[in-house]
Amino acid sequence: MRRLWNIEEFPFHPEKILHHETIFSIGNGYLSTRASFEEDYAGQTPATLIHGVYNHVPGALVPELVNAPNWLPITIRIDGTLFHLNAKTTDYLYPPRGALLGYRRTLHIDEGLLRREVLFRAKTGSVVRLVFERFASLSDQHVLAQRVQLFAVDGNPEIVIESSLDGTVTNAGNQHWGDFQVTAKGSIISIGAKTQQSGYRLGMASKLIAPGKHKAKVKGLQPTVMTAFTLKQQETITVDKFTTVFTSRDTHEPLTAAQKKADQAAKKGYDALLSAHRNEWAKYWRDSDIQIMGDDNAQLSLRFAMYHILIAAPRHDQQVSIGAKTLSGLGYKGHVFWDTELFILPPLTLTQPHLARNLLMYRYNKLLGARHKAQANGYEGAMFPWESTDTGEETTPQWSDVQPDGSRIRIWTGDSEQHISTDIAFAVLQYWRWTGDDEFLRSYGAEIFLDTAVFWGSRVEAKNGRYEISQQIGPDEYHENIDNSVFTNRMVVWHLQRALEMVDWLKAHAPNDHQRLVTALKLTPERLNHWRDIIAKMYIPFDHEKQIHIQFPGFFDMEYIPVPLYEPRTASVQAILGHKRSIQTQVIKQADVVMLMALLGDELGASREVILNNWNTYYPRTDHGSSLSPSMHTWVAARLGLSETAYELFQHAAEIDLKDNKGNVRDGIHGAACGGLIQAVLFGMCGLHIDADGKLKTAPHLPEHWQQVSFHVYYRGRRRAFRVKNPVKVSPSA
Amino acid sequence: MRRLWNIEEFPFHPEKILHHETIFSIGNGYLSTRASFEEDYAGQTPATLIHGVYNHVPGALVPELVNAPNWLPITIRIDGTLFHLNAKTTDYLYPPRGALLGYRRTLHIDEGLLRREVLFRAKTGSVVRLVFERFASLSDQHVLAQRVQLFAVDGNPEIVIESSLDGTVTNAGNQHWGDFQVTAKGSIISIGAKTQQSGYRLGMASKLIAPGKHKAKVKGLQPTVMTAFTLKQQETITVDKFTTVFTSRDTHEPLTAAQKKADQAAKKGYDALLSAHRNEWAKYWRDSDIQIMGDDNAQLSLRFAMYHILIAAPRHDQQVSIGAKTLSGLGYKGHVFWDTELFILPPLTLTQPHLARNLLMYRYNKLLGARHKAQANGYEGAMFPWESTDTGEETTPQWSDVQPDGSRIRIWTGDSEQHISTDIAFAVLQYWRWTGDDEFLRSYGAEIFLDTAVFWGSRVEAKNGRYEISQQIGPDEYHENIDNSVFTNRMVVWHLQRALEMVDWLKAHAPNDHQRLVTALKLTPERLNHWRDIIAKMYIPFDHEKQIHIQFPGFFDMEYIPVPLYEPRTASVQAILGHKRSIQTQVIKQADVVMLMALLGDELGASREVILNNWNTYYPRTDHGSSLSPSMHTWVAARLGLSETAYELFQHAAEIDLKDNKGNVRDGIHGAACGGLIQAVLFGMCGLHIDADGKLKTAPHLPEHWQQVSFHVYYRGRRRAFRVKNPVKVSPSA
Repeated sequence: MRRLWNIEEFPFHPEKILHHETIFSIGNGYLSTRASFEEDYAGQTPATLIHGVYNHVPGALVPELVNAPNWLPITIRIDGTLFHLNAKTTDYLYPPRGALLGYRRTLHIDEGLLRREVLFRAKTGSVVRLVFERFASLSDQHVLAQRVQLFAVDGNPEIVIESSLDGTVTNAGNQHWGDFQVTAKGSIISIGAKTQQSGYRLGMASKLIAPGKHKAKVKGLQPTVMTAFTLKQQETITVDKFTTVFTSRDTHEPLTAAQKKADQAAKKGYDALLSAHRNEWAKYWRDSDIQIMGDDNAQLSLRFAMYHILIAAPRHDQQVSIGAKTLSGLGYKGHVFWDTELFILPPLTLTQPHLARNLLMYRYNKLLGARHKAQANGYEGAMFPWESTDTGEETTPQWSDVQPDGSRIRIWTGDSEQHISTDIAFAVLQYWRWTGDDEFLRSYGAEIFLDTAVFWGSRVEAKNGRYEISQQIGPDEYHENIDNSVFTNRMVVWHLQRALEMVDWLKAHAPNDHQRLVTALKLTPERLNHWRDIIAKMYIPFDHEKQIHIQFPGFFDMEYIPVPLYEPRTASVQAILGHKRSIQTQVIKQADVVMLMALLGDELGASREVILNNWNTYYPRTDHGSSLSPSMHTWVAARLGLSETAYELFQHAAEIDLKDNKGNVRDGIHGAACGGLIQAVLFGMCGLHIDADGKLKTAPHLPEHWQQVSFHVYYRGRRRAFRVKNPVKVSPSA
Repeated sequence: MRRLWNIEEFPFHPEKILHHETIFSIGNGYLSTRASFEEDYAGQTPATLIHGVYNHVPGALVPELVNAPNWLPITIRIDGTLFHLNAKTTDYLYPPRGALLGYRRTLHIDEGLLRREVLFRAKTGSVVRLVFERFASLSDQHVLAQRVQLFAVDGNPEIVIESSLDGTVTNAGNQHWGDFQVTAKGSIISIGAKTQQSGYRLGMASKLIAPGKHKAKVKGLQPTVMTAFTLKQQETITVDKFTTVFTSRDTHEPLTAAQKKADQAAKKGYDALLSAHRNEWAKYWRDSDIQIMGDDNAQLSLRFAMYHILIAAPRHDQQVSIGAKTLSGLGYKGHVFWDTELFILPPLTLTQPHLARNLLMYRYNKLLGARHKAQANGYEGAMFPWESTDTGEETTPQWSDVQPDGSRIRIWTGDSEQHISTDIAFAVLQYWRWTGDDEFLRSYGAEIFLDTAVFWGSRVEAKNGRYEISQQIGPDEYHENIDNSVFTNRMVVWHLQRALEMVDWLKAHAPNDHQRLVTALKLTPERLNHWRDIIAKMYIPFDHEKQIHIQFPGFFDMEYIPVPLYEPRTASVQAILGHKRSIQTQVIKQADVVMLMALLGDELGASREVILNNWNTYYPRTDHGSSLSPSMHTWVAARLGLSETAYELFQHAAEIDLKDNKGNVRDGIHGAACGGLIQAVLFGMCGLHIDADGKLKTAPHLPEHWQQVSFHVYYRGRRRAFRVKNPVKVSPSA
């Protein structure tokens, strides 16, 4: 077992079951499966989420990513005793309970393998060591493999095994599937089903390879194959289960494809599948590993973060993207937010550009939805939805779930958090700058970038002799429907500046595409002049006396709450003050101005004095109520040389999923926190950037105890190796 | 806050309350106090244990270290809301409960300071940040200091404070104290009391320094001083409490002394006391810190281990020693075992020799008890008790507590675990070899060493043409009352060999002491010749065919259980098999032969082949049912170059207290595991040893990822610095 390449649970922590179910998830960019157990365990929430398979049940406000049938179940009886982990509960179970003598679960991050070892004693006294392994093949994304090794430590137990697929699972009660076809024949069981509103068809098949005579049967939505054998003292018996998944997004006959594939996978065998899977993981890590010398926790948390991005990133699909909670939980219903482009994507742009490209192609392929949204709101161009699914239409719910007092709260983000259109454009440009992938830009990226610029040209409001944008929500979602968000206004200026340059570039380097886009997007000279006018006259709220950016006019008129005094706390300051009061205060969820400084860097054109003033103003007002916040703040603090503060914020970010410090990891991994953590290290602490001459540079501000950070990035197609250390301090006197 | 110098609890983990109560203990070598809260919390087990204060209650089998009155209580009401941590329980409390908004507890290992920050909201909405600090002064061991800082984050709350001493505490129901004198006058409260059987008198006084008019009263055994004040928004108010402790072991008038001292401490003030305390801690760490580069967890766990040894080690007392659970819990009743001499003491011998000397002086001062035990059993010389207290008499209980089935189990260790006499002698010699403290040896150490040798001379049995020792228990306590324990027999030979050398040395270098001891211990030529005969003819069980030591004759006739197959497990294999079966198997609690190899090193005179054979034989039979085991095995594995196994065992040892991997930390710190861990690193991984020429050498076998270990040791009065690295590997080909 390689050091700092795994997370471990030892012994069993039943109180952390849902937290661990999320963080020990496995996946392969096609689907992910939460780390539920093979056997029943009260309260666990098994989920397998397949990219792109959304459905809208009657009565729900919005569609959601659909929980697929559970492929994990393997029930084991040892001398008649049901194997399970409830060894400490009272004895009401039949058959009688056994004793859990030991337990260790390890997620091998280096090879995408979940392994669980259990020592269990049956009521008869037989002691069996069970080793469970599972992986979602990275080399063949339709294949899921499980292995159980049973070893008789003491006694000669009779073993009975039942392997099932479980079609009864739901999304917390929402049953999306219908038209079930459940079969069990020989050692192959299968489920076919169809999502009831969206009509996606699913095929899942599973083949068991185990000793004994196999007996298959169908129990409702649970096809099962059963076998039995005797395990002799100190003998090992291996049971393998190969499950396959296809949907109508892959093939016209997903069930047939799954059944055929299950047979093939079983023929190939567990070892060969695992070996191919490991090879793919080795390739991933060759490029994506970031090594930190001098801080073990930081090292492990960075790898953990990258792992969860990699298992969520589609490898062979340009019609899907990564939801806010990745594929590891039901939170945010699998919807895609700005989290993807500004937080999750950059680590891929730098280390796995082909995966980044897939994610950007999702946005290209959903331009129609964005154009619909613009049109529906009376604008031109492409206005991306705040929450996006398979259709590309806006799927932000307008109302919250029912609150404890019976009311629902109006959700404004779908209406007002319009900066997402520029966030996506930002990611396109960042991808192009780093990869030099002109083909992508010409054929796809420019259209995203320019049509969202067209949107902004139609969106801004000419008034008071300048341009303004009203009714916005910035990254600081505590303050809704404000006018002239400095983040939005300034990013729009940046967006239009780069759009004009892009038009010039296209004209010079890709005249055909230039012509095509000028025609399609109506990039008339008048429109371009209008953009220039906006750039010149956009209102950027700024306090010239204090030399700071103003989050939005009126912000400083509200009650000041000294956020750092509210420590230590496990709740947000918003929760402590209550919603009603907090929205009338200067408490910030995540600082718009800090985010602006992180993203634009030198392009912001602010002096170091302004940047420092901004930091000193907004940092003490920010409660990091969002999991997206600490990493961006780490980045900026590091850049300012505030190493201690940067490291504190880094630790906060690093612990969000691993320590569940917000208490909501049960709903899924915080994908943006993972991506933000990596950016904080690369862009913040290492100061990695492209300088004015297009050269790749670092400007290290590592925490004092970090000896070195090493990593690889792709820059314009070339793989570049970096070893970053702090500059040697020269003492003032000899 | 210095990195890797503290352990932290964030947020509050009520499920770990008893584990944390132990590991966050503070102490100063005079007493230790468990990390119970200032305010009431259901289920917590406050304990302050003062070295040397034992008492025997009627009906108990043996005396125990007495739990002193609790000096911690500070009850705080905020706008009438009682401050407490049960914020999630249902609301049956009066005054009404508040809300726990945040919690962080940090033990600062570098300065022996426990700090707790809490954010709390009263029912009225007032939010208060509370910072609690406490330390047991290392510069004045009778002084205990507490500080509470209250900061009004929101609102202008009314604060009511009650500071108490609590004389109602017991040892899990055993009330040792009587003759209470409880007083409360002005801002000083005090308790005088006397242990009912042993007659130790205690004086404890406490002075509160806080705003508001103080009102003192006595409620039963709880003298209390109360005050009240208003805390204005964003104002900080500091409340200090100075408690002092004396016993009749220190002074004839402990209560008067305590009262006087409380006044003095308050006059000196918290900051001055803390500053002096910090200075003493800085001195401790200057000599005792071991720095590991390349492994953060290893670093922290080593410091944690050293911290718990340092807070338990008496600084100014030669009549007390460190119990198996230090002073941090009621486990093993505060009794002193071999744990002290062979596990806890060596790190002190090397880094704080004056503390090691105090502990050895305890044994010297209890020689009378050891002579009584020898005499009572029909032997000569000094036979140390297996469990020792203030009297030096044998205090091992003969029977266990009542078992679930109503029976008691006979405990044989007090009768048969006789190797302790040699363990103590071993520690004496080790101390002398390292320190060169001839004065100690001449005046005290030699008497211990030689009188225990006298004991063995009378203890061995001449039969079968050789010497044997029957009815023993070795370190492997699973096998009781066996004949010819290889550990005991071989250690006795070593003991007598060194005893003869010591007699010669005394004759040459300290003729007066030689003469005195020859007379007092009757070291006649016949006796010395008898020792020579024993050395020559002692039966050392050895299998010449297999080239291994035999733990005891007959050991290999018992059932073989492959211990490594019982993984992963949280219970001992003994517990899994059940007592009845396990004693008839080869399952070992901790390996006698491994311990022998660790202690004697080259003095064992075994070839590398034998050492390796021994390891390969006993390691797979050992279930580490004792917390003493993994560290000794780490040591030997490292020495054999089995770096991976050594590191696994090291981690096991390192997690015993920090992760509570045996589930019994609630009863106190495993002092021997702490000391063993440090020995495993210094003697095992670094291979620190005195070579045949008396030179200090290292023979590094560091885990591969450890870059460097640095430390200081005292050798013959000189402070020596070491930086140990693995030798650079030379590739076989260029």
